[in-house]
Amino acid sequence: MKIELLKDLLEENDHKIIYLIMDGLGGLPQTPGGKTELETANTPNLDALAAEGICGLLDPVSPGITPGSGPGHLALFGYDPQEFIIGRGVLSALGIGFKLTEKDVAARLNFCTIDENGRVVDRRAGRIPTELNQKLVEKIRSRVKLPGEVEFFLETVSEHRAVLILRGEGLGGNINDTDPQEVGVEPLEPKGEDPASQKTAELVKEFLRQVKEILKDEHPANYVLARGFAKYVPLPTMKERYGLNALAIAQYPMYRGLARLVGMTVPEKPETYQAMWEQLTSNYNDYDFFFIHFKKTDSSGEDGDFDRKVKIIEEIDAWVGQLKSLDPAVIVVTGDHSTPSVLKSHSWHPVPALLWSRFARPDSVTRFGERDCASGYIGRMATKHLIILALANALRLKKFGA
Amino acid sequence: MKIELLKDLLEENDHKIIYLIMDGLGGLPQTPGGKTELETANTPNLDALAAEGICGLLDPVSPGITPGSGPGHLALFGYDPQEFIIGRGVLSALGIGFKLTEKDVAARLNFCTIDENGRVVDRRAGRIPTELNQKLVEKIRSRVKLPGEVEFFLETVSEHRAVLILRGEGLGGNINDTDPQEVGVEPLEPKGEDPASQKTAELVKEFLRQVKEILKDEHPANYVLARGFAKYVPLPTMKERYGLNALAIAQYPMYRGLARLVGMTVPEKPETYQAMWEQLTSNYNDYDFFFIHFKKTDSSGEDGDFDRKVKIIEEIDAWVGQLKSLDPAVIVVTGDHSTPSVLKSHSWHPVPALLWSRFARPDSVTRFGERDCASGYIGRMATKHLIILALANALRLKKFGA
Repeated sequence: MKIELLKDLLEENDHKIIYLIMDGLGGLPQTPGGKTELETANTPNLDALAAEGICGLLDPVSPGITPGSGPGHLALFGYDPQEFIIGRGVLSALGIGFKLTEKDVAARLNFCTIDENGRVVDRRAGRIPTELNQKLVEKIRSRVKLPGEVEFFLETVSEHRAVLILRGEGLGGNINDTDPQEVGVEPLEPKGEDPASQKTAELVKEFLRQVKEILKDEHPANYVLARGFAKYVPLPTMKERYGLNALAIAQYPMYRGLARLVGMTVPEKPETYQAMWEQLTSNYNDYDFFFIHFKKTDSSGEDGDFDRKVKIIEEIDAWVGQLKSLDPAVIVVTGDHSTPSVLKSHSWHPVPALLWSRFARPDSVTRFGERDCASGYIGRMATKHLIILALANALRLKKFGA
Repeated sequence: MKIELLKDLLEENDHKIIYLIMDGLGGLPQTPGGKTELETANTPNLDALAAEGICGLLDPVSPGITPGSGPGHLALFGYDPQEFIIGRGVLSALGIGFKLTEKDVAARLNFCTIDENGRVVDRRAGRIPTELNQKLVEKIRSRVKLPGEVEFFLETVSEHRAVLILRGEGLGGNINDTDPQEVGVEPLEPKGEDPASQKTAELVKEFLRQVKEILKDEHPANYVLARGFAKYVPLPTMKERYGLNALAIAQYPMYRGLARLVGMTVPEKPETYQAMWEQLTSNYNDYDFFFIHFKKTDSSGEDGDFDRKVKIIEEIDAWVGQLKSLDPAVIVVTGDHSTPSVLKSHSWHPVPALLWSRFARPDSVTRFGERDCASGYIGRMATKHLIILALANALRLKKFGA
């Protein structure tokens, strides 16, 4: 649905929508014709929701496209990930929980090794330990002085990876990578594509000049390469687009940051599943939409640990068992993408999804799994439509046209 | 997926993709509730691929739209047929194997009958025999002289149908049909919509003036009507769009021409199925993508011969049995459109499709047929997405976003 047409259809009520997201939920069998992680898991609560609700398979971006976490979540929130592109620098900053403001331009930095002629010898400085990264970051922070009213923040990510944030009035993020993507050549000069970005590129140049001086006697990390420059531009909020006051319950910085990007309220990090439940119940009356994010389905998939992913799905299933006691109008369970443990990575396979509501027209699916979802009423569709289905089932949309 | 976003995701490797296209594959039952041609055929090899792979139903253009061969194949090659429109003149030239160049404007010509006042009496000149068409074409070729540096080519198609190609610098194809689409009126004057097309329209006018003189004593074919003027503009190639070196193995001129239009290499015409296999194996190491086109499923459907279509599908199934010995990463089997023998024509029915790959998530389909495909993982989708799924399964696409 076109967003400008949707606006006129929005209806306010107190019906609650719960989105339970298992990161990387979709999987693959270990042997041809076998069962996926979700199909293997014993999930009585999810199965009951699937039996009463509708099921389907979702493409986060487009068929065949493997989504990163950013595009995967934007699609869940109803934002077309091919239209709303989030720069890598911004995603990296979100990933470490850095609270970006509208004055910020962010970029990924990699510590690297250069030779006496300034040519890149190792683009990752031998993947230095995180502790050394922290030490070097501290050194740079304490010594670099930028001209004018511009602040900078430098944050360790892990190993050779860090994030640089420049904060000031009138900065721009349309700046090329300085990482030449090959060794034996000098890093590229940062150049801006427009006046604001040109001004920012000059600051980056000055920053890099000082860093080179500061790190000149270090080894192997004696310089940095920058990529993915991007200005932080908050998206239209879920309140503006859907009339929803949204709360995010998520343990990991990236997802908390993505939720903030679309205007959700993000309370303090819940340490346990029990704390997540308490955050949900204690805030239940104050919000319309609850984004609840479980990370470990993805991490176990990335680790290639089929059995652990099965077990984690079963633990989350137990957690799901409590949800109906809150009397929500809509419960959605799906993922932001697939992470089959046999691939040890995100994949392009469509993601199983269920939508439970008292107004769902029940299909013949009685179990929550990939094969079963293929024959459900949702069919195969783009993830971005799901929020509209949820709004409809919460009776939050008026008739379109007379 | 937006093509400009896809570009950044392309990954090179040596994984092969085989597209086996049975023209007009989709069918209909002869009696209500009966089996289609494909469902009737005994297809052990296709069934095995369907069981291990994923199945679905594809809409070449959009639900309900009956595609011609041009749009049907463009969709298979991943080009949106509503965006890339190929003019009829160009398609007619491709259909007779004429090798168009970027200097060419092509149009369909029909021999017609006009009366002494120049009014059209029969728009098809009584469907003259092809032999007479050839004789008249020869006469016109030898006598018409166009001014300037412009060449023309006139080629018989069949009966009253021919193709005219004008070749020269700065020609344009935005010219109206001269065929008035009714009898009792004079043919229309050709007019160009822009300077290049105006210049070309003047040449067409001169060509028609001379033809009228040359044919004035012939009967019934004493003039020609032109339609479907179009300039030949090669499309972005499959190499540019997908990073694929593509080879076309096809017996019929139209499909060889369509393959050339998207930059495929098209070796000499293979005379037999065995020759097609040899073309595939002898070129296997030099290409990434193989478009293999079987025509007779369509011709038998057009002839209304249900049983022959069944038999042809079974012959192709035997051919398919050899494919896995080449160890491709992806095998796709589908059609460019449906040609149900009960309709004796192309139709709008979605086309059964299977995609086999070691990374396909197996669905519950174990037989390759229209009904079975309806419950497969591919679901019902636009044909243009299929190439992206194939690229993904060949591990030729990187993750989108971080």
